[in-house]
Amino acid sequence: MDVLKVGVIGCGAIGREHIKRLHNKLQGSRVVAVMDVFPESAQRGADLVGSDCKIYDNIEGIVNDSDVDALVVTTPGFAHKEPIMAAIKAGKPVFSEKPLATTAADCKEIVDAEMAGGKKLVQVGFMRRYDKGYRQVKELLDGGTFGKPLLAKCTHRAISVDPSYTTDMAVTDTAIHEIDCMHWLLDDDWTQVQVIMGADTKHAHEGLKDPQIMIFKSKKGYTVILEVYVNSNFGYDINCEVVCEEGVINLPAPAYPTVRKNQMISTPIEQDWINRFIDSYDVELQEWIDDTKKGEVNGPSAWDGYIAAVTADGLVASQTSGVMEDVSVGETPEFYR
Amino acid sequence: MDVLKVGVIGCGAIGREHIKRLHNKLQGSRVVAVMDVFPESAQRGADLVGSDCKIYDNIEGIVNDSDVDALVVTTPGFAHKEPIMAAIKAGKPVFSEKPLATTAADCKEIVDAEMAGGKKLVQVGFMRRYDKGYRQVKELLDGGTFGKPLLAKCTHRAISVDPSYTTDMAVTDTAIHEIDCMHWLLDDDWTQVQVIMGADTKHAHEGLKDPQIMIFKSKKGYTVILEVYVNSNFGYDINCEVVCEEGVINLPAPAYPTVRKNQMISTPIEQDWINRFIDSYDVELQEWIDDTKKGEVNGPSAWDGYIAAVTADGLVASQTSGVMEDVSVGETPEFYR
Amino acid sequence: MDVLKVGVIGCGAIGREHIKRLHNKLQGSRVVAVMDVFPESAQRGADLVGSDCKIYDNIEGIVNDSDVDALVVTTPGFAHKEPIMAAIKAGKPVFSEKPLATTAADCKEIVDAEMAGGKKLVQVGFMRRYDKGYRQVKELLDGGTFGKPLLAKCTHRAISVDPSYTTDMAVTDTAIHEIDCMHWLLDDDWTQVQVIMGADTKHAHEGLKDPQIMIFKSKKGYTVILEVYVNSNFGYDINCEVVCEEGVINLPAPAYPTVRKNQMISTPIEQDWINRFIDSYDVELQEWIDDTKKGEVNGPSAWDGYIAAVTADGLVASQTSGVMEDVSVGETPEFYR
Amino acid sequence: MDVLKVGVIGCGAIGREHIKRLHNKLQGSRVVAVMDVFPESAQRGADLVGSDCKIYDNIEGIVNDSDVDALVVTTPGFAHKEPIMAAIKAGKPVFSEKPLATTAADCKEIVDAEMAGGKKLVQVGFMRRYDKGYRQVKELLDGGTFGKPLLAKCTHRAISVDPSYTTDMAVTDTAIHEIDCMHWLLDDDWTQVQVIMGADTKHAHEGLKDPQIMIFKSKKGYTVILEVYVNSNFGYDINCEVVCEEGVINLPAPAYPTVRKNQMISTPIEQDWINRFIDSYDVELQEWIDDTKKGEVNGPSAWDGYIAAVTADGLVASQTSGVMEDVSVGETPEFYR
Repeated sequence: MDVLKVGVIGCGAIGREHIKRLHNKLQGSRVVAVMDVFPESAQRGADLVGSDCKIYDNIEGIVNDSDVDALVVTTPGFAHKEPIMAAIKAGKPVFSEKPLATTAADCKEIVDAEMAGGKKLVQVGFMRRYDKGYRQVKELLDGGTFGKPLLAKCTHRAISVDPSYTTDMAVTDTAIHEIDCMHWLLDDDWTQVQVIMGADTKHAHEGLKDPQIMIFKSKKGYTVILEVYVNSNFGYDINCEVVCEEGVINLPAPAYPTVRKNQMISTPIEQDWINRFIDSYDVELQEWIDDTKKGEVNGPSAWDGYIAAVTADGLVASQTSGVMEDVSVGETPEFYR
Repeated sequence: MDVLKVGVIGCGAIGREHIKRLHNKLQGSRVVAVMDVFPESAQRGADLVGSDCKIYDNIEGIVNDSDVDALVVTTPGFAHKEPIMAAIKAGKPVFSEKPLATTAADCKEIVDAEMAGGKKLVQVGFMRRYDKGYRQVKELLDGGTFGKPLLAKCTHRAISVDPSYTTDMAVTDTAIHEIDCMHWLLDDDWTQVQVIMGADTKHAHEGLKDPQIMIFKSKKGYTVILEVYVNSNFGYDINCEVVCEEGVINLPAPAYPTVRKNQMISTPIEQDWINRFIDSYDVELQEWIDDTKKGEVNGPSAWDGYIAAVTADGLVASQTSGVMEDVSVGETPEFYR
Repeated sequence: MDVLKVGVIGCGAIGREHIKRLHNKLQGSRVVAVMDVFPESAQRGADLVGSDCKIYDNIEGIVNDSDVDALVVTTPGFAHKEPIMAAIKAGKPVFSEKPLATTAADCKEIVDAEMAGGKKLVQVGFMRRYDKGYRQVKELLDGGTFGKPLLAKCTHRAISVDPSYTTDMAVTDTAIHEIDCMHWLLDDDWTQVQVIMGADTKHAHEGLKDPQIMIFKSKKGYTVILEVYVNSNFGYDINCEVVCEEGVINLPAPAYPTVRKNQMISTPIEQDWINRFIDSYDVELQEWIDDTKKGEVNGPSAWDGYIAAVTADGLVASQTSGVMEDVSVGETPEFYR
Repeated sequence: MDVLKVGVIGCGAIGREHIKRLHNKLQGSRVVAVMDVFPESAQRGADLVGSDCKIYDNIEGIVNDSDVDALVVTTPGFAHKEPIMAAIKAGKPVFSEKPLATTAADCKEIVDAEMAGGKKLVQVGFMRRYDKGYRQVKELLDGGTFGKPLLAKCTHRAISVDPSYTTDMAVTDTAIHEIDCMHWLLDDDWTQVQVIMGADTKHAHEGLKDPQIMIFKSKKGYTVILEVYVNSNFGYDINCEVVCEEGVINLPAPAYPTVRKNQMISTPIEQDWINRFIDSYDVELQEWIDDTKKGEVNGPSAWDGYIAAVTADGLVASQTSGVMEDVSVGETPEFYR
C-alpha cells in the first residue's frame, strides 16, 4: 500500500486538525472521505482536502466505502463507540481520539468485539506516549541503570477552566492522560486509587474542587501521586518525577530561551496543552499511518482504553468516598499482550 | 547581660559541636559548665572550652549552679525530659535538641509545667526553621503575592541508613523535621495523617519499609505530601514545593558549581545532613543566645515539640493501619500564641 | 505545481540523507533524478527512491533535464560552484549545502551570475537559522522588548576532531556556522574580526590550535565573542547569549530528562551535531520546498554565502596576524535586500 | 593573644560596617580605637563600640597606640597609602580595603617598604577570594580532575551607575575585582590586556562607554574574557565560567527559591553587590583576625595589590588604544611567594 486512504469521522476542531495533519503534513496518507452529522461541518472538513474528497452524513456509508482503508474518529466522546464498532465489523483499522468510550461497559463491549473479530484494529489517541520527553524517560527506565521504579509524582496544571468543567472532569478529562501514560511508562496495572480533596483555590468556580491529589497503587506496588490543578493561574505545567532504586528521573520541560530581565532569570511555561503536545500528535499519527500500512497496531489499544475507563470510575468514586477504591480490571487478555 | 553563660547537658557528638559553636564561633555566649553521666565525655566537652569550665555528673548540680544563666540539652532523646523539667523548676531558659521528649505524654507534662511556671523558657532544636532557603520560602508566602497555600510536596531523601534504622524511625527521626517545619511554614496545625507504603528499594535492609509516602491534612484544608526515602542511593536531597493560589514556590537547593563533563551538565547533591543544614545550627543558636539575653523565646516552643510528638504518633499508627489517622492536639493555648 | 521534482547532485552521506528527506519525510517533493561522478554512489542514491529515478554522471544532464524543477547540491565544497552556475544558467532554483563555494572570488562570481540573471535562485544550507531555539531567540530580539542587542557570546564545542582537522578549519568548518547565524540573528554585517590563540588542550593533536577565541565587530557596533573548542572532551555544546539594552537572552539547549544519580543532578549534552541539528535540516528543506513552489527564495542567499566566505578569510588571516582584520564586503546589493 | 585589638582608620560607611563586624559579629576581635579626619565621623564610629573606644584625628596617634594590635584601613582609596606606610613602619599588621593605593608607583612603594621591613604585614580587601562559590570553583580547579584551565569568561553586571561613574572606572572600580580574583583562581599572572568597546546601551549616561569587553592573557597562555556592563538594567549579575581540558566549571549563583508565576519559571537576581558578597566580608575579616593572631598574612598581599594596579593601568591604556597592552609586573619576589 503506497498511500493510506483515510476516512475521518467528526469534523469539529480536532477533526479538522487531524485532516490537515493526515493530508498535508504527514507522509503516506490522504484523506479521501469525511463524515459529520452537521453538513456544514463535513463540508468544512472536506474543503481542507480538495474537490475529490467524499462527504458522508452517516457512519455506515464512510466505514464501508471501499476507497477508505482506515478510519479516524474525532467525534465527541459519547459518539466514539458507534463508528469504532462499525469499523471493527468492517474489519478496518480505526484510530479513535480518547476516550475509547464514555463508560467502562461500552469500552468492554469494544474490546470483546475486537477480540471476537480476531484482529487488532483499534488504537486510542493517548498522545502523551508520543511526547519526546516521556519517551526519553521511558528509555531511561527501560535501560535498566535506574533499577526498579518505586514512586512517581506528576503534576497536571492548567491556567484556568471554564464554568462547564465539573469536579469529575478532573478525572475524566484531565487525569485520564496520566492514567494511561503512567500505566505505560511504569509498565504496570493499577489496583487501587484514591482522591484527596482539600482547600480550594479562590480561582475555582463555585462547586469545583481544585486542586485534587490522586493516588494510584499498582500491581507491583508502585505508588503514583498526581496533582491535578486546573486553575493554577500561572501556566500549563506538566511534570513527572520517577523515583527509582538507583536514582530519580524528571520529565524535561520543553526548551525555551532563558532571559534575564527585571531582576529575574526566567524561562516561559506554556499557556495551554496545544503547544505543549502539538508535536506528539504528529508523531502519534505518523506512527499510526506507518503501522497501519504494515497491518499492525502498536499504540494504545482498546484494552488500554478500557483500563483507563475502569480506573477513572475508581477515581470518581473516591472523589466522594475519600478512601482507596479498588480498580478491578482483571488480567490482560493474551490478545492484547 | 553582656555574655550568656551556658551550661551544656550531654557531651556526645552533637553536644561537643554545640559547645564549640557557643564558645568559639557565635557572639555573646560562653560555656561555663558541662554535664555528662560519663566522666570522660564530660571532660572532653570541658576541654573544648578551657580550664575554667566546671564539670558536673548530675543534672541538679549544673541546672542550679548560679553561674549558669541558661541550659542547652544535647543528651539522647529519652534523657531530655529530666533536665528540661529541672530547668523549668529553676526558672532558667533551656534549649533542647529535638525531640522535646520521646512520648506525647512526656511532652505534655513539660508543656504543663512550663505554663504552670508562667514564663516561656523552653526552645526545641528544629533547625530547619533557620535554614536560609526555608526562610526565603516563608518570606514569599507571608508576603502575600502568592495567595493562600493549598498543597505542599516535600522529599526527604538520604543515601542510606544503617541496620538499626527501623520503619517507625522514618517518622520519628526523619519526617519529624517536616512535621514541624511545614507546620511552621504553612502556619497551620495538622488534623489527619496517613502513610502509604509500596514497593521497597532493594537497598533497604530486611524489614525496613522504604520509601514511604506520608500525607498531612491541616485545619485550613492544606495537604502536604512527603516522600521519605532513606536509601535513595544517590544523595541527601531535601525538596519542598508549595502550591499556592497565585503560583508555586520551590525551596532552593544549596548553591554548587555546575560542571560540564562526560556528556553531562551536572551539579552536586549533598552526601548528608551535616553539610546541608550546618549553617542553620549557627543561626538557630545565635538567635537563641540573642533572644535569651532579652528574656524571650521566639523559636520552636514546647508546644511545637508536643505537636510534633502527637503528629508522629498518628503517622506511626498509620504505618500499620494504612488509613487516615486523626491528630488530636487541641487548640493552641493562649500561652503559646 | 503540486509536487516539486528535485534533482540531487552528489550522492555521498549528506546527499543520501537529503534524498531520504526530500522523497520520504517531507511534504510536496519527489527526487526524480540523481547525479554523482561515481556510478555506484549515484546508484545508491537512486535506490533510496525507487525504479523511476534517473541517474546522471554529469552536471549538464541533470540540470537541463526538463523533468527536474529544482536542484540540490551536496557535492564536496570545492565542487559546489559548477552545478550552481549551471543551475543559474538554466534558470532553475538550486539549494547548495554550505559553503556556497570555497573562495570569496568564486562566491562573488556566483553572486554576479545570479544578479545578471535577474532572479533569485540560490539558497545556501546554513541550517542553524532553522533551529527552533535560534528562532525563539530571534523572535524575542525582533519583538523589541529587549531593546538593541549590544554583545553576544557563543560557544561552539565538540568532543574531539580527527587528525585531518587543521587550525584554519576552526574557521571554515566550525565558526562558519556562527559567521552566518549571528549575522542573521543580529541583522547586521561584520566589519572587523580577530582571533586570539592561547594555551592549547592536551587533547588537541600536534599542530592544532584549540581552543580559539574569535571576535566579531559589526557595522552597528555590536561585538560577538565566539569560543571554538573542538576537543572539549565532554560534549557537543552550542551556546549563545545575547546581551541587550533591556536584558539578556540565552539560547536554550535541547530538552533532556534531568536525573539524580551518584550525588549529582545531571542533564545530558549531545555527543555530536547530528542529533543537535537534525530537526533543523527537516525545517530548512521543507521551507525551501514550499518557497520554491511559490517561486521565492527566503533562506540564506548567495550573498550570505559570499559574506561568510569573506568573513572567514578575515578570521583565517587573524589566526596568523593576531590583530583585528577588516572584513570588506561592501554594501548589500538592492537585489539581495 | 586572646582578643585582637583593632584600630579602624576611616569611619565612613564601609568603615562603620567593618567596626560592627569586628566588634559584634566576628569572633576574637575588639575595636579599641577609631580615627577619622572628621570628628563627627570618628564619633559615629566609636559610638558603635561603646564608651571605652579611643578616638583619634591623626594617623600617627592610632597606629602607635600601644593598645592597638592591628589596623584596618577604610579611608577613601587615595588615603590608603599613608596609614599603610605608617603601620609598616610601626611593624603592625594592616588590612586595607581595595585598592592598595591609587597608582602603581604608590603600590610599589608599599611593597618595597614591606619587603624592607622583612615581615608580611599588609592584606588587601579583595573579598571575592572569600566568596563561597569562587572557593568551590577553586577547589574543583585545584582538585585536578578538570585538567589545565584554558579560558575563562566572566560577567560583571550592575543595574545602573550614577553620573559620576566614568569610563575608566569600569576598570578601576569594577573590573578590579576580576583582575585579582581571576589571577588568584587561575594561579597565574597577566601579561597582556585589551579592551574592546562597541555599541553603548541607551541607559549609559553621556560619555560613558558601556558595556566593555576586557581581555586578559596570562603567562601560561590562558585567556580571560570579561564583560563589564554596569547599566544592564536587570540585575547585579556575576558569572564566571572556566573552560578546562577535561570540562567546564561555572560559578554558582546564590540560591533563591524558584517560582512559577505568570507563565514563567523564575529565580531572582541580586539588585546590588551588598547582598551578593556580604558573606564574603565576614569570612574575609574572620580569617584575617585568625591569621593575624597567629602572626600570618594569608590573604591578598601588597604584591597582589600592586599587580592589580599595574594591570588596571594596562586596561585603561587599552580603553583608548584599543590594542593589546603589555602588563609589566615582573617576577613575583621570593618574599611574596
